[in-house]
Amino acid sequence: MIETAAAPVRVKKISEGIASEQDDFLACEEPLEIRIVFGAAENRQKKSISVTMRTPGNDPEFAAGFLFTEGIISSNAELKTINDSIENRIEIELSEESIPDLQNQERNFYTTSGCGVCGKSSIEAIRTITSTSMDSDEIKISAGLIYSLPALLRQAQNIFEQTGGLHASALFDISGKLLLLREDVGRHNALDKLIGTSLLASELPLKNHILLLSGRASFELIQKAAMAGIKIVAAVGAPSTLAVELAKEFNMTLIGFLRGQRFNIYSGEKRVAVSGSI
Amino acid sequence: MIETAAAPVRVKKISEGIASEQDDFLACEEPLEIRIVFGAAENRQKKSISVTMRTPGNDPEFAAGFLFTEGIISSNAELKTINDSIENRIEIELSEESIPDLQNQERNFYTTSGCGVCGKSSIEAIRTITSTSMDSDEIKISAGLIYSLPALLRQAQNIFEQTGGLHASALFDISGKLLLLREDVGRHNALDKLIGTSLLASELPLKNHILLLSGRASFELIQKAAMAGIKIVAAVGAPSTLAVELAKEFNMTLIGFLRGQRFNIYSGEKRVAVSGSI
Repeated sequence: MIETAAAPVRVKKISEGIASEQDDFLACEEPLEIRIVFGAAENRQKKSISVTMRTPGNDPEFAAGFLFTEGIISSNAELKTINDSIENRIEIELSEESIPDLQNQERNFYTTSGCGVCGKSSIEAIRTITSTSMDSDEIKISAGLIYSLPALLRQAQNIFEQTGGLHASALFDISGKLLLLREDVGRHNALDKLIGTSLLASELPLKNHILLLSGRASFELIQKAAMAGIKIVAAVGAPSTLAVELAKEFNMTLIGFLRGQRFNIYSGEKRVAVSGSI
Repeated sequence: MIETAAAPVRVKKISEGIASEQDDFLACEEPLEIRIVFGAAENRQKKSISVTMRTPGNDPEFAAGFLFTEGIISSNAELKTINDSIENRIEIELSEESIPDLQNQERNFYTTSGCGVCGKSSIEAIRTITSTSMDSDEIKISAGLIYSLPALLRQAQNIFEQTGGLHASALFDISGKLLLLREDVGRHNALDKLIGTSLLASELPLKNHILLLSGRASFELIQKAAMAGIKIVAAVGAPSTLAVELAKEFNMTLIGFLRGQRFNIYSGEKRVAVSGSI
């Protein structure tokens, strides 16, 4: 358990009319401001990019992942330094060559519920970035392997067990081995932490990987996964209409309601071997 | 079921290695732009306030609720017309006397994961708005009444049953009668729809009411509930640290993990009668 991700609390528990005081844990939620420093050497500028409620932990990875999945930067070569010396603030200095794309940010970024990109022009942007990775180099996994993923996530997801309050994103290789797990009160944040970690390790695109989401699959989660070149996304919960549309648009395999020995395939079923391989 | 809230889908279901094609439903998710027209008669201005991914349905209520819970307007008297004639866009004309507060919006509103307000100054703003309602006019409810709420929500929440993909916010009176239910792919949106409906009906503050949340309780949900003057919030899921802090700050009763004959009280236990009354 990351010590800043869960906090102890004294709680009054009511059970069948009987009250008792008990020690428990809560998922931590705190604001994080992301700032960037950018521009040519003679004209460096500073800009506040976002203030997001997040669970403390992996903040540099979160901030780097956020800049990447929102299309503000397009590679880790643009990252010069990441400064987390001030609590609840990350300042990322971009290279002098980097030209951050703040267009989406200025146009559409005034929302609380999760829309970084909307409409045709943004879908074009994802297409540009992901164009190389989706069709070539095909992978295939078995239904049996897919069944096994949630239990591997739960084994590793210690904080969730304690607080019941954290979303998780987990990255597996195509043999079903858990490579990376990130948790947050916000499901977008958990995915940004995961993709940011991979970005900083120069491991993008994640084209031989499976992404497992502990909850539902929204448009924005699929958009972020597409930015990272992920071809197979499995969610424990339901996908939305727009999540399915986007997955189809990018030839991504999207699995939902993955529970026990069951799941639904909404897109890209060619990558799933159902019978004969389990 | 609101016909735009769920869409039919043909899905490949895998169960214990057997594949079958079936008809199913998905929760709809589409972008909505909220614009306002404001200013003195001789100098009317138009401004795009947000683009949010939401489930279509109750859009005027959603937009009005969003403006109110984010502190941009402070009463329904400021609303002149609400125009929803263009798909996925709501244009709200404010009265000439209205001075919308766009400060928070310009400073902190560039995020995807749910932070409208952060830090001391914003907490002060909520305090100003909610100052009159929280302490006076006390209410008390029994544990037995609290146990009964989730089943009443589930009975009414038809779409969720179909798609598994929608969050719900439900408003009850203190006798446990369900007054209002709103659903959305985004939990903040479901609450904004509910509060917006009450705002348009001139029913704020909701000081003799109970709010039930189908999922977890975040800082922002508690902030929105406080803006509406709600004194008792019960969540089926876990609260976060900051949600509990904010509830304590505003003397709000916050209940979490409400399942079966059990729940936890994190704040404001004086409003809950545990024994002798169930």
